[in-house]
Amino acid sequence: MSEAVETLDGWYCLHDFRTINWAAWKEASATERELALAELRNEYEKWQEREQIKLGSFGVYSIVGQKADLMFMHLRPTMEELNEIETAFNKTKFAEFTEPVYSYVSVVELSSYMAKDKDPETDPEIQARLKPILPKWNHVCFYPMDKRREGNDNWYSLSMEERGKLMYAHGKTGRKYAGKVRQIITGSVGFDDWEWGVTLFAHDVLQFKKLIYEMRFDEVSARFAEFGSFYVGHRKTFDELVPLLHV
Amino acid sequence: MSEAVETLDGWYCLHDFRTINWAAWKEASATERELALAELRNEYEKWQEREQIKLGSFGVYSIVGQKADLMFMHLRPTMEELNEIETAFNKTKFAEFTEPVYSYVSVVELSSYMAKDKDPETDPEIQARLKPILPKWNHVCFYPMDKRREGNDNWYSLSMEERGKLMYAHGKTGRKYAGKVRQIITGSVGFDDWEWGVTLFAHDVLQFKKLIYEMRFDEVSARFAEFGSFYVGHRKTFDELVPLLHV
Amino acid sequence: MSEAVETLDGWYCLHDFRTINWAAWKEASATERELALAELRNEYEKWQEREQIKLGSFGVYSIVGQKADLMFMHLRPTMEELNEIETAFNKTKFAEFTEPVYSYVSVVELSSYMAKDKDPETDPEIQARLKPILPKWNHVCFYPMDKRREGNDNWYSLSMEERGKLMYAHGKTGRKYAGKVRQIITGSVGFDDWEWGVTLFAHDVLQFKKLIYEMRFDEVSARFAEFGSFYVGHRKTFDELVPLLHV
Amino acid sequence: MSEAVETLDGWYCLHDFRTINWAAWKEASATERELALAELRNEYEKWQEREQIKLGSFGVYSIVGQKADLMFMHLRPTMEELNEIETAFNKTKFAEFTEPVYSYVSVVELSSYMAKDKDPETDPEIQARLKPILPKWNHVCFYPMDKRREGNDNWYSLSMEERGKLMYAHGKTGRKYAGKVRQIITGSVGFDDWEWGVTLFAHDVLQFKKLIYEMRFDEVSARFAEFGSFYVGHRKTFDELVPLLHV
Amino acid sequence: MSEAVETLDGWYCLHDFRTINWAAWKEASATERELALAELRNEYEKWQEREQIKLGSFGVYSIVGQKADLMFMHLRPTMEELNEIETAFNKTKFAEFTEPVYSYVSVVELSSYMAKDKDPETDPEIQARLKPILPKWNHVCFYPMDKRREGNDNWYSLSMEERGKLMYAHGKTGRKYAGKVRQIITGSVGFDDWEWGVTLFAHDVLQFKKLIYEMRFDEVSARFAEFGSFYVGHRKTFDELVPLLHV
Repeated sequence: MSEAVETLDGWYCLHDFRTINWAAWKEASATERELALAELRNEYEKWQEREQIKLGSFGVYSIVGQKADLMFMHLRPTMEELNEIETAFNKTKFAEFTEPVYSYVSVVELSSYMAKDKDPETDPEIQARLKPILPKWNHVCFYPMDKRREGNDNWYSLSMEERGKLMYAHGKTGRKYAGKVRQIITGSVGFDDWEWGVTLFAHDVLQFKKLIYEMRFDEVSARFAEFGSFYVGHRKTFDELVPLLHV
Repeated sequence: MSEAVETLDGWYCLHDFRTINWAAWKEASATERELALAELRNEYEKWQEREQIKLGSFGVYSIVGQKADLMFMHLRPTMEELNEIETAFNKTKFAEFTEPVYSYVSVVELSSYMAKDKDPETDPEIQARLKPILPKWNHVCFYPMDKRREGNDNWYSLSMEERGKLMYAHGKTGRKYAGKVRQIITGSVGFDDWEWGVTLFAHDVLQFKKLIYEMRFDEVSARFAEFGSFYVGHRKTFDELVPLLHV
Repeated sequence: MSEAVETLDGWYCLHDFRTINWAAWKEASATERELALAELRNEYEKWQEREQIKLGSFGVYSIVGQKADLMFMHLRPTMEELNEIETAFNKTKFAEFTEPVYSYVSVVELSSYMAKDKDPETDPEIQARLKPILPKWNHVCFYPMDKRREGNDNWYSLSMEERGKLMYAHGKTGRKYAGKVRQIITGSVGFDDWEWGVTLFAHDVLQFKKLIYEMRFDEVSARFAEFGSFYVGHRKTFDELVPLLHV
Repeated sequence: MSEAVETLDGWYCLHDFRTINWAAWKEASATERELALAELRNEYEKWQEREQIKLGSFGVYSIVGQKADLMFMHLRPTMEELNEIETAFNKTKFAEFTEPVYSYVSVVELSSYMAKDKDPETDPEIQARLKPILPKWNHVCFYPMDKRREGNDNWYSLSMEERGKLMYAHGKTGRKYAGKVRQIITGSVGFDDWEWGVTLFAHDVLQFKKLIYEMRFDEVSARFAEFGSFYVGHRKTFDELVPLLHV
Repeated sequence: MSEAVETLDGWYCLHDFRTINWAAWKEASATERELALAELRNEYEKWQEREQIKLGSFGVYSIVGQKADLMFMHLRPTMEELNEIETAFNKTKFAEFTEPVYSYVSVVELSSYMAKDKDPETDPEIQARLKPILPKWNHVCFYPMDKRREGNDNWYSLSMEERGKLMYAHGKTGRKYAGKVRQIITGSVGFDDWEWGVTLFAHDVLQFKKLIYEMRFDEVSARFAEFGSFYVGHRKTFDELVPLLHV
């Protein structure tokens, strides 16, 4: 039996992907669309207030391709709050013009493969990473992943030391992209269908590809990573959503 | 040929997942919604009465993310009763505003890997575990699973002794979470698409992740477990469903 | 090249799974529902007449869980007749209130792994097994399956002798359930997506689980079986369908 | 690097599977249904004319089970013509009462594993096989397939000689069914999701099962074949479609 | 840890597949259809203008089979522009008569497995390949692919030298088709669900099959390629779309 690594867990996280029903949106009267936008703005402002008092964070993104039109990403101290956000959104007029197409439930996670001599409960850097305010960078990339458990490539049968070594090398690849790509790892064992969600932020969308491609050659990815669907998009403030939705 | 372990089987179990059609729900008249809620309450009370006389148990849960909005979990002495519960629910006004999205059919199961000197038919502890009243804890987690049969990782080719040893170690991990997580294992060979359903209950939702992640390093999970979708949610009494459904 | 086993083939078989569109069913007028039931009864009686003159057999089952509400199982001397039954059902008023969700096309099959000194064309026991009248037992279980062809676990590369030995051991497990579970094996190579369909009948629904779970430890299942979805349900006469459909 | 076998390629081929929307078909007025049938007859006659002048071929089949109700199979000298047939059908009144459920795009293919001393461009037998008029036999069976590329079972890493030997043995199994089953192999690398489509024709539907099952024991199938969905059905002339569609 | 190959990245690319809702299209009034076509023409002309000033490129293709009716392929210097094209299309009247069925997000990519002594930023040939004007050839073929990471067939664990050698041999197969098939490789790591998209253009549609089939015997494909769905179609100018859409 292999020794499990301990994790530090922070805010709960919901990624909520939606397509827009453009035909219905166009068929709606201007008044209905205004009402829908007003209700969306109302939710948006509530999310913003939570972020301002550091009791949560959020981002809205326009997703490229047909998998989704919008991604809403929410962070909160409790999972119940995520459920409330989701339900409140579902009750809006705006939600009537969208279809749910994918979601992901997870919790911000830091793993402790590397030696640590800090108290996570008080260390401000660790606390900031566990309760992150989402960067206001232009681009977002989300994908879920597993560590493989197949034949000779079984992550969970490796010793803690081997896993630590592989993760350390992986981290080195990541650090080359400091300032270019920021990542938030969320754990989802027991919460959703993959073991982790990875959310990346960048100023230059190409850096997502460069980073993930380079990492694929790390042994930890080459031999042990299984990936779900990839979503890429651009950050939108409420004021930027208005022209996007103008018909 | 490997020797099959004997199982003790208790109440039959139905997990019934639904999404709410929010657009239709909002479009309905207040009278229709009241009628729908009254019919839901009526079913809820029938479920409660069964539980009070210890001829069944149930729970209603608000599921996080888009996979489902509600999960109804039912336990009954016979499978026919589960079919009746399901059909009765389908005939309600409330069901018209929901879509079925997943279900799971199984039976409460205790396996006998460990030596036993009790008579399961009369032992009160075993009887209570075979006919469990669902704990009224805040959070629920459900997932189905298989034991792997692939190449050198073939659970069903192991000797009874090897299987017993692996399950014993696994049980030890589980016992570390006593008081934090309660689990009900239901067997579904011949009843549904996976071999077992696992339903967990916790006061603190994070304990689901801690437990399942730690267990993944047990050899029995690392080498032999295949998992289906994970659903996580919060328990709701009827009185808590009312505001959830208020529009 | 491995030697193929010869099969004896009997009546053709269609498993036809449907969900009921309860919202539409309830919205229909009482007259429409009566008409729909009358047309269903009409088909049912035609199926019954065929069975009485031993030119076919059938069963109607209420399926537990969301995968289906009803399963219609039909046996006929020719595949064209199955196609006609299916089309006739599709043209009924009742069918308008159902959705097709799964079906399986196969033919009753007996394999000849064991030595035989009977003439299958005239032996009454073999003829009865090839053209079976479905038992009127309470419970039904259906699942499709393949024999695995992967790496060292390749059924079709085993010698006839090895296959015969494994099937013989498997048969022994089955015979322990004589009187408790009856099985009809239908072959579907070239007809549907799996190689076989297995339909089981029992007085006690738990025996499905006991039998299939015990068999999973047989080498032939442990190493060589791949399973599709499992459906479990209860037999319904027409008179029992009426209250099921009463709204 | 293994040597690719050369292929001879003939007419392009479209398999077009449809379900009938029976509820809509019954709800239509008799006049609408007559118009729909007249438009279907019109297409049918155009297909027939092409076949009579040997510039194409076609067949219409009633498919058993829920996967499809009808399969239209078309052969033409160019792929553009297939696209035109498909679009013309989509524009008919009849198409409004059908749903597309599966299709397959391929080209008639003969492989040259066996030595040949004929000029394929002029040899009448080869030309007839490359531009086949579909047999008017009663039953049809279609399935797509790949050659496996996994671990030690990698078809594309075998030498030409080994592949030739395996295909030769496979061909011998096939020749046992001469007069009972006719097959048309169509290649679809680059055109659709599998590497080949196999369309079989028989007077006795059981021969499909016998042939494919026997072939599964050939090493080329046992170790190297991956199969898609299987569709089985019965040939229908236009005059036979009329009662099928009568409501 | 294996060394990642560096890539050169050019224009961003969106493949947007749609089916036509023929029933709705036929039911629309002639005026509505004219308006829809006018709005489609308007988008088409904007795409054309971008191409004329070499700030992008595009193609419209009629896809064979049911997977899609039309494929729109767009290239742009930034991913945001692709998002704008997509949104603008979704807002047209024409889009109301289509359903999104598949899309692919990627970026034109050249890999540097072969030694290079050119400055990619200034070399005109490299620049032309990174910012390609789509060839106006008759036929198109699209498919996504991965390099395999399984057991002994793990591309990302090979040395740079081994990978270079395999890619070189693969390139040689490709060069045999010079003048017959042109290919544009787009990278999609981090952008979509596969690692690469391959778009091929040909005068003779059969060349797609010949090329891809021959390549499958290259070790790099035989052992390391995993393929998604294949789409094949014919180029359509706006004037050619009009009769296609005439009802």
